[in-house]
Amino acid sequence: MSTNKMWGGRFESGPAAIMREITPSIDFDKRLAGEDLAGSRAHARMLAHEGIISKEDAAQILSGLDQVEAEIKAGTFVFKRELEDIHLNIEARLAELIGPAAGRLHTARSRNDQVVTDFRLWVRAACQRADEGLMALQRALLAQADKHIATIMPGFTHMQPAQPVTFGHHMLAYVEMFARDRGRFEDAKKRLNESPLGAAALAGTSFAIDREFTAKALHFARPMRNSMDAISARDFALEYLAACSIAAVHLSRLAGELVQWSTPAFGFVKLSDAFTTGSSIMPQKRNPDAAELIRGKSGRVLGDFVALATVVKGLVLTYGTDLQEDKERVFDAADTLEISLAAMAAMVADLTAQPEAMRRAAEPGFPTATDLADWIVRAREKPVREAPHTAGSIVKRAEEKGVTLDRLSLEEMQAVDPAITKAVFDVLTLDASVHSRMSLGGTAPGRVKEQVAFWKDRLK
Amino acid sequence: MSTNKMWGGRFESGPAAIMREITPSIDFDKRLAGEDLAGSRAHARMLAHEGIISKEDAAQILSGLDQVEAEIKAGTFVFKRELEDIHLNIEARLAELIGPAAGRLHTARSRNDQVVTDFRLWVRAACQRADEGLMALQRALLAQADKHIATIMPGFTHMQPAQPVTFGHHMLAYVEMFARDRGRFEDAKKRLNESPLGAAALAGTSFAIDREFTAKALHFARPMRNSMDAISARDFALEYLAACSIAAVHLSRLAGELVQWSTPAFGFVKLSDAFTTGSSIMPQKRNPDAAELIRGKSGRVLGDFVALATVVKGLVLTYGTDLQEDKERVFDAADTLEISLAAMAAMVADLTAQPEAMRRAAEPGFPTATDLADWIVRAREKPVREAPHTAGSIVKRAEEKGVTLDRLSLEEMQAVDPAITKAVFDVLTLDASVHSRMSLGGTAPGRVKEQVAFWKDRLK
Amino acid sequence: MSTNKMWGGRFESGPAAIMREITPSIDFDKRLAGEDLAGSRAHARMLAHEGIISKEDAAQILSGLDQVEAEIKAGTFVFKRELEDIHLNIEARLAELIGPAAGRLHTARSRNDQVVTDFRLWVRAACQRADEGLMALQRALLAQADKHIATIMPGFTHMQPAQPVTFGHHMLAYVEMFARDRGRFEDAKKRLNESPLGAAALAGTSFAIDREFTAKALHFARPMRNSMDAISARDFALEYLAACSIAAVHLSRLAGELVQWSTPAFGFVKLSDAFTTGSSIMPQKRNPDAAELIRGKSGRVLGDFVALATVVKGLVLTYGTDLQEDKERVFDAADTLEISLAAMAAMVADLTAQPEAMRRAAEPGFPTATDLADWIVRAREKPVREAPHTAGSIVKRAEEKGVTLDRLSLEEMQAVDPAITKAVFDVLTLDASVHSRMSLGGTAPGRVKEQVAFWKDRLK
Amino acid sequence: MSTNKMWGGRFESGPAAIMREITPSIDFDKRLAGEDLAGSRAHARMLAHEGIISKEDAAQILSGLDQVEAEIKAGTFVFKRELEDIHLNIEARLAELIGPAAGRLHTARSRNDQVVTDFRLWVRAACQRADEGLMALQRALLAQADKHIATIMPGFTHMQPAQPVTFGHHMLAYVEMFARDRGRFEDAKKRLNESPLGAAALAGTSFAIDREFTAKALHFARPMRNSMDAISARDFALEYLAACSIAAVHLSRLAGELVQWSTPAFGFVKLSDAFTTGSSIMPQKRNPDAAELIRGKSGRVLGDFVALATVVKGLVLTYGTDLQEDKERVFDAADTLEISLAAMAAMVADLTAQPEAMRRAAEPGFPTATDLADWIVRAREKPVREAPHTAGSIVKRAEEKGVTLDRLSLEEMQAVDPAITKAVFDVLTLDASVHSRMSLGGTAPGRVKEQVAFWKDRLK
Repeated sequence: MSTNKMWGGRFESGPAAIMREITPSIDFDKRLAGEDLAGSRAHARMLAHEGIISKEDAAQILSGLDQVEAEIKAGTFVFKRELEDIHLNIEARLAELIGPAAGRLHTARSRNDQVVTDFRLWVRAACQRADEGLMALQRALLAQADKHIATIMPGFTHMQPAQPVTFGHHMLAYVEMFARDRGRFEDAKKRLNESPLGAAALAGTSFAIDREFTAKALHFARPMRNSMDAISARDFALEYLAACSIAAVHLSRLAGELVQWSTPAFGFVKLSDAFTTGSSIMPQKRNPDAAELIRGKSGRVLGDFVALATVVKGLVLTYGTDLQEDKERVFDAADTLEISLAAMAAMVADLTAQPEAMRRAAEPGFPTATDLADWIVRAREKPVREAPHTAGSIVKRAEEKGVTLDRLSLEEMQAVDPAITKAVFDVLTLDASVHSRMSLGGTAPGRVKEQVAFWKDRLK
Repeated sequence: MSTNKMWGGRFESGPAAIMREITPSIDFDKRLAGEDLAGSRAHARMLAHEGIISKEDAAQILSGLDQVEAEIKAGTFVFKRELEDIHLNIEARLAELIGPAAGRLHTARSRNDQVVTDFRLWVRAACQRADEGLMALQRALLAQADKHIATIMPGFTHMQPAQPVTFGHHMLAYVEMFARDRGRFEDAKKRLNESPLGAAALAGTSFAIDREFTAKALHFARPMRNSMDAISARDFALEYLAACSIAAVHLSRLAGELVQWSTPAFGFVKLSDAFTTGSSIMPQKRNPDAAELIRGKSGRVLGDFVALATVVKGLVLTYGTDLQEDKERVFDAADTLEISLAAMAAMVADLTAQPEAMRRAAEPGFPTATDLADWIVRAREKPVREAPHTAGSIVKRAEEKGVTLDRLSLEEMQAVDPAITKAVFDVLTLDASVHSRMSLGGTAPGRVKEQVAFWKDRLK
Repeated sequence: MSTNKMWGGRFESGPAAIMREITPSIDFDKRLAGEDLAGSRAHARMLAHEGIISKEDAAQILSGLDQVEAEIKAGTFVFKRELEDIHLNIEARLAELIGPAAGRLHTARSRNDQVVTDFRLWVRAACQRADEGLMALQRALLAQADKHIATIMPGFTHMQPAQPVTFGHHMLAYVEMFARDRGRFEDAKKRLNESPLGAAALAGTSFAIDREFTAKALHFARPMRNSMDAISARDFALEYLAACSIAAVHLSRLAGELVQWSTPAFGFVKLSDAFTTGSSIMPQKRNPDAAELIRGKSGRVLGDFVALATVVKGLVLTYGTDLQEDKERVFDAADTLEISLAAMAAMVADLTAQPEAMRRAAEPGFPTATDLADWIVRAREKPVREAPHTAGSIVKRAEEKGVTLDRLSLEEMQAVDPAITKAVFDVLTLDASVHSRMSLGGTAPGRVKEQVAFWKDRLK
Repeated sequence: MSTNKMWGGRFESGPAAIMREITPSIDFDKRLAGEDLAGSRAHARMLAHEGIISKEDAAQILSGLDQVEAEIKAGTFVFKRELEDIHLNIEARLAELIGPAAGRLHTARSRNDQVVTDFRLWVRAACQRADEGLMALQRALLAQADKHIATIMPGFTHMQPAQPVTFGHHMLAYVEMFARDRGRFEDAKKRLNESPLGAAALAGTSFAIDREFTAKALHFARPMRNSMDAISARDFALEYLAACSIAAVHLSRLAGELVQWSTPAFGFVKLSDAFTTGSSIMPQKRNPDAAELIRGKSGRVLGDFVALATVVKGLVLTYGTDLQEDKERVFDAADTLEISLAAMAAMVADLTAQPEAMRRAAEPGFPTATDLADWIVRAREKPVREAPHTAGSIVKRAEEKGVTLDRLSLEEMQAVDPAITKAVFDVLTLDASVHSRMSLGGTAPGRVKEQVAFWKDRLK
């Protein structure tokens, strides 16, 4: 939207003015410049290799493309809205630079396969960047986990403390989620990594091109098998957006925890100054702006998926200009995800856990009640469905006395169940509880340490 | 996203650099400059009127704001990302211009009520612009309807010709839809037109402000009744986005018809050159780019609604920085809707209906079969559920003979039902059929004319 | 989905079996039975009144419809999937009951206008139910507000305590939001309240029907003006779903607060046993199941809107079977919204606020720092932008001393700003702060009382 | 929603009644019965194997579970809403059948890991069913492609004929899309195939369980590494829903083509009677109901994804009752996708292509204009960017003469470009054009045959 609309101005009227506003994509698709140059180089080399254009023409084209790249990098390239898109902008400049040979670059190629080739290359790189951003975040989480393998905090269900866990264990839960996110981007990247170049307008071409050549040159695994599919399909962009949406859901969950943990009521973490804003008037207040922004931005990524899915859903084969909408949605999601990942990774790296506050929050509410019940099952061989009632009665006594379970006397417990022995005290403290959860994947520090070692190995 | 990401560059690392990237909203919220100035003027006048600041301070502030406005309009105002948003940018410039008095403008006001006041003013104006854009489109449709009150075309169900209608009638169906869209924007505008100014940070203020004064100055119907609601609520933005989404659905439907009607298989309309693109190679091909873009853009507006609804859904009262996402979604939807409306209105105004092609498409398929059945019911007083079988049998005879219904002989018809008389031929032509649909709202040209007159009166 | 799929069974194969599965709508559209009967009665009376059918036929039809209604109410009506939908089910039964006259009911009517008439009637009633459910919730909130006009709690920004407010004030913020929700349903109801009956298949009819008659009989404001619009438009359903979505966002926000407020870390409210679930093992744990379910269900309503918007977006005029999807989305959203409103109203009515916990949470963090700054501005006539720094320095001193602001000595304050007098202590307590926010809509109990009175009057 | 709401009834009032309505999930989660039994069997065997329960108890449990299964299959099992969910329903029945041993089944297990284990098993099977449904559809498309390797039809861009292709080629484009859909389900299945069983409530357990044992018994690849992740994560459900959404987009595209192709204006395909509905009155009309339903249902699947993403986005770790919403969204999407795939596969298998209509539609519009231009480039070694102008001028001449390109005389062509020779006629017919597109993936029948062979091999 290039019009200066700062003052709520209307669009100019008249068909021509409106079309100048609505049609050009150069304002956003100039981000495909690098991919467009790469595609053109591969195509030119192939054409020369197959003898479809002369070696001299190819040399001229390649040298012209180098100059275009230099101009773009130097910021001297003039993008023109009247040339509509990045492809025509580069082509026009190439013609200025090298004359008629420029025209031969378009042999056996159409804007249809050119644009989708560029776009696949861009999304492939975006998958790679997402992977790297996720890995950096995993590392930040892992570093916190490593520091806090045995730091006790409440484990929550329904936002209420349920059983003690360690902060390291909690951090590693997110390492797992982001690992699966990486898997989704990797799968998306693999699936999209086929070359549409050579599909031409939609039906292929009568020139004797070598699609394997260009596919290889652009590091695609292979050419796409069907030219109509090559031009029409946008599931690669949808899959990327879906992977972004799911990763954004995970980011939102973690951001929500950080917002909550940094409230005075919790105080589990202290975010660094860089990631909070204060007010001169309330110097103790630290608004978790970055976390809130990340949480807020996750909705946007979902919106991008909905937008493109809705567009593609309605289209018959092969190309319709509706598809021009694909790029802005993908660019927006990529920008949003990448800045969110970078901010989250830095914020997690910088935060300081507050073990005392965590432990303090873990104490009330008889969080070892399930440990007591499990002990009863084990020691007394009671059916699991009865033990809770015994444990519940003991908890009630502790509640009445106003003490934690590990401070309730053995007599009080035996009044509920005479067979309880003093061995029960081995499981009633927070530390005992946490250490006892030795099942695979459990919160016992020994198990958390195993997870940390696993991920250190994976993420090095 | 200001970073040059043309070459797929990564974000700078380091917390400070990341926050410089993610935090500032000035790149987009500078569009609120006009609203921010208006809000500040109203607030300054009120403060002086109530004696909270001196008249001299107020005069200085107002004159300073005039200069800020002049600078913005002249393009000389320097927006600074380090000042984060439009409010601080204007405030800082005002302080440079008028010194300490600038600081008094913020008495009894907070950024929280300032930002939501600006935003409500902006959305209110956007509702107005949507209304005007919709009305312009209605007029274009009405003009076509007026020209084609009696132009016969097929009426479709399941994309298949079912009964003849007139092109004017079809155009007016959209006039009705867009009328309801206008109603939704009007309702949204009315509902949001309450002033949050004076809610301060969230709890109101201890200064003796006059919220009626500022509400009136900003043409709000009244101050909002509850300061926490004033700061927290974003349903006004959601309602605007919902209205945009529904209007976009209507635009998409109409755009889809234009795409289809301008295919060679239909040929019902000829879009003007401005709204199509051709190719030098296929001079007869006219791609309906504008219609396809409008259809494609409708998904985007829905995405904007989903994005913001998802964000607000998760927020407790009152303000969270997540809400910074509200403006970009609304701006994007507004820009998209407004350019789509402008393009659609101009495209409809410029199109040329092709009555011959329409009539030709209406002929096959025995589109007057229901007229025949209705005639049988009326003339023969047959139960409605029997007449179709009689009519169906006659249609089958016509199909076998390869003639239209009005060319089947009376004898053939009487062979099916001996009581049929030659009066039946009064209803079997396309024109007879269309003219017979005289029920209120029906496609009979007399009825269509009534609708045209109604809308001419409304839209003048 | 009627097939027993409990064991992951496949669908029967064969076209006929698949179509039996996918086509019928009777499983869900039988909920339109009441509306279908009402529509048929109005239509029959009109036909007789206009002399299109005989009075005898009409009497028979009406008496037959009475019997159908009685059977449905008695649960003896047999709904048949092979009759596909509610309309054909009722029609077939009517024919069994009264014979040939049943066939005359369909004169000058089509399934197209019949189905959309029924659906509009249903959505109209759903708007009314939503209004009633919202009003009941408002009353529950108002009752809490009335009890807690002056109960002090922290007002939050960024989930952190910012300024003290009253619980009554907070409750009333939601009363305002739900009031606007009611406005949206009312507007939706008004806008949809036009009769499509008589539009017939799409083009109107050649029978001399009186559409005003049926419109009036069904309490529609008027007949729709354009028969094609009448058959094609579903914006009424979309508008209903959008209003549901926004109301669901508000419900989700309130539910999120209840979940948070009922955690031990907050303890602001105690939900009644009915709305929480505990565990025998942790008798003190009260999971806020109902609040979580309401919060979870809000996403579903948004999904319903997205689903239908996506469907309608792609359709040309007039009817396509895609539209069969409209009813399930609307029924699902209505059911979800209605049970959520009922649960929320009952839960709010039953909850017990915990004023001590609220006040305790409001104390820390120097929540009257802005009051101090405002006092400095007023008393010292300092520019607003300087006062925060003074106040901030005083807050720092209090922080160092470990006392609340109202317990810091005058000397300490004067060490920062010598001109501070002991009058400052009038604003430094929570109560003083809250009482000072006397601006319209502010949190001062006097203002909250005004709001309570306003709403008592409105909601009686 | 169990309440009879047929007459728009209100919910019963009173907290208890409301909770009875909103809380139970048994109405939908009884579909997890098979998975729940499998999970319990694996758990019981493991407990016995590890000596945590006795072999006798295990035997009793397993025999009791067999009986429960038999009862469910026989339809004699009584599902009770007061027992809330499938897990408690089965547990309660087991206790009735075998007494105290039933209680021991719950040792070292919690409802939290039980429910998510069941759900993962269900989604895993749903991925498998999606794969099979997609493969069946691919086979139907492949069979059509095989029959129509060389059947010429127009290839469309912008819904307008652009270049001739073959119907087989077009069918195969969808085979490719659905192949990638299968890949997405396969990846989702692999990624989710980890066992959460043993995560217990959230922290693991102090019982010496063997999670490898249960993982293996349930055919999971391995136990999940982190117990909190196991309980909290729902990305597996989101990924499944995303894959469904993208597949639904493809189904919608194909359905849209079938709707369009079966209109009289196109007439490219004849759908079989089973998949269309007619009307007695217009016997020649065949409404493509099934295709429209499939197209309509695709929006619903997208809505399911939006709904669940919105829910999960807002949740902190670990379990919140909001997650109860996950199952209905997944069940709805699975049912919708599976019936849509079955209907589409059967409809494609049954359709009859109409080669004459296809060819007739391919003739007009000079579809071999690009062939002419390519010939000029090749024969005349003209730069690609000039050839179109020459070709365009020739097309204009043909247009003026009212002939197709292959019927324009050589003289006429030479008047535009004297160097054109009669060899040009080798490329100007539809058949020549199609046969010339010999590039890999092109529409030349030889290439299409290759694709058919490839897929025959893959899909056998």
